[in-house]
Amino acid sequence: MKSDIIILGHGSGGKLSHQLLDDVIIPRLSGLPQRDQNDAAVLTHGGRRLAFTTDSYVVDPIFFPGGDIGDLAVNGTVNDLAMSGARPLYLSVGLILEEGLPIVDLERILDSMKSAAAAAGVTIVAGDTKVVPRGKADKIFINTAGIGVFDHDFDIRGSGARIGDKILVNGAIGDHGMAVLAGREGLDLHSEIKSDTAPLHELVAELIAGIGTGLHVLRDPTRGGVATTLKEIALQSNVDLTLDETALPVNEAVRGACAILGLDPLYVANEGKLLALVAPEAAEDALALMQRHPTGKGAAIIGEVSDASTGRVYLRTAIGGLRAVEMLAGEQLPRIC
Amino acid sequence: MKSDIIILGHGSGGKLSHQLLDDVIIPRLSGLPQRDQNDAAVLTHGGRRLAFTTDSYVVDPIFFPGGDIGDLAVNGTVNDLAMSGARPLYLSVGLILEEGLPIVDLERILDSMKSAAAAAGVTIVAGDTKVVPRGKADKIFINTAGIGVFDHDFDIRGSGARIGDKILVNGAIGDHGMAVLAGREGLDLHSEIKSDTAPLHELVAELIAGIGTGLHVLRDPTRGGVATTLKEIALQSNVDLTLDETALPVNEAVRGACAILGLDPLYVANEGKLLALVAPEAAEDALALMQRHPTGKGAAIIGEVSDASTGRVYLRTAIGGLRAVEMLAGEQLPRIC
Repeated sequence: MKSDIIILGHGSGGKLSHQLLDDVIIPRLSGLPQRDQNDAAVLTHGGRRLAFTTDSYVVDPIFFPGGDIGDLAVNGTVNDLAMSGARPLYLSVGLILEEGLPIVDLERILDSMKSAAAAAGVTIVAGDTKVVPRGKADKIFINTAGIGVFDHDFDIRGSGARIGDKILVNGAIGDHGMAVLAGREGLDLHSEIKSDTAPLHELVAELIAGIGTGLHVLRDPTRGGVATTLKEIALQSNVDLTLDETALPVNEAVRGACAILGLDPLYVANEGKLLALVAPEAAEDALALMQRHPTGKGAAIIGEVSDASTGRVYLRTAIGGLRAVEMLAGEQLPRIC
Repeated sequence: MKSDIIILGHGSGGKLSHQLLDDVIIPRLSGLPQRDQNDAAVLTHGGRRLAFTTDSYVVDPIFFPGGDIGDLAVNGTVNDLAMSGARPLYLSVGLILEEGLPIVDLERILDSMKSAAAAAGVTIVAGDTKVVPRGKADKIFINTAGIGVFDHDFDIRGSGARIGDKILVNGAIGDHGMAVLAGREGLDLHSEIKSDTAPLHELVAELIAGIGTGLHVLRDPTRGGVATTLKEIALQSNVDLTLDETALPVNEAVRGACAILGLDPLYVANEGKLLALVAPEAAEDALALMQRHPTGKGAAIIGEVSDASTGRVYLRTAIGGLRAVEMLAGEQLPRIC
């Protein structure tokens, strides 16, 4: 039964988010069919393509191992642009501040945004600041919107997967979600778990330069994790995907923490990871290229596109079974980004 | 003495907002000098100019006489683009929803955004939805960012005022702020007070077509009202401005309500008004052109740029005195947009 009020699961990035989008939001705001919903919109004006995207950040806590809401807000939007194959150029920043926020915290977050923008080569060109009374927000929410340009004419999109494509990830999964959870709950989840927040546009530029049209799909598996993002790709491309459980890179500390807490790393958010679906003949080149890059050292080929067209995702388990993978149901970890 | 925490006045759009911007935010995020801070950034790429802007909307209540947070979020960003002389084309929408928000309220707001976007001729191309737990936001916050293009090569900016320019406004001031206040407090401020929220891009396009380079400055006097916006222009252009109190259009109901509540309409927010500074020889044409347009029926010439260069604004009062006009101090009406 559908809820008649907003519940936390509507923000999970998983099944309930998709329901809200499909039933309530998309029909009113854009009418865009699901197969055309990507991390960034690609606009054509004056014969040139532009990428445009937005994300709001409400992560709790605002400071967590490996990052804070500031660099997250910059890197997240840089990455959404990069996933469309664009070169990120300009960001806008919308701040919603809660009365009582210490100015030193704001300064620390803005410093972090400044560093992240410099590292990603983007310029913050527009901004807005609102303040709401104590208890009407939670410290700080940040919206970033971004504009990117294209240095090539390839189409990289969620609907671009083809039979035989290999699925690559640029490193270990689940770090961001577990780092935020540790920060929030004050858990001592081994101090080595840090958010993987990082800009991925350089890695994407190298993939484009290296394998060109062999690069079919790019997505960053944030809310809802690798499982939810792959399910979205399978539906958008109308293909089936098979993942190899033994090939999935997961840091030991994350694996252990997930086991203790009953979480599945496949559903835990990432902020410095991308999934690339590439033509089979380009897969080894793409893998080598990733592994040479600082943000791709732990890259692996984790699965492939099979020859069925039912929009399903399967996990080939360590003991040889085949398990269907669905989108995240409910809210595994609210306010993860 | 400066506060070491965020206080409501930091969101007023007035003096405290400027302090926070100048001391904390701008140095870290953009480094842009004040004279170049406009409602939208103008970017040049591939030889073409683009306008880019963002605003977050946190208005309380979310439904008020004459509008709601949805059409406000669309019109506000459309207007920020228009004030740079751009034709608004694309919007992104970032929603932050509080757990417990009735879906029917969300639907009503989204319907309102859809209508406003259609009326303004803009397309919503990118979006994001986050949910926070009950008590961590207030029903709904909306961020919109927008992209516009230029059909001309005129420069319209806050630093463009010249000695002798006439100051025009396209109608009665203070309606939006008083409508929101009435909605918030449940005041019976005569039911005829309605928000003036409206898209102004068509009026701007007609001004550009009609008086061309005679159009020097455009700004929409939202938070902080006409007084604060004119003070900003005076500082950006390094000119003095003189306003005629008797020429200022104010609806009777707003005038009465302001008198009762001890508010000055010059500081009350507008959402469908613009201030245009135009060359003296173009002023009568601009006025006639405004008065023929549905969003400019109540237009008036309200002042002029004098020959001093101290960044001051004066009000010539009804009884012939000359009073200095400063930016809004403190927070007259928090969460007005």
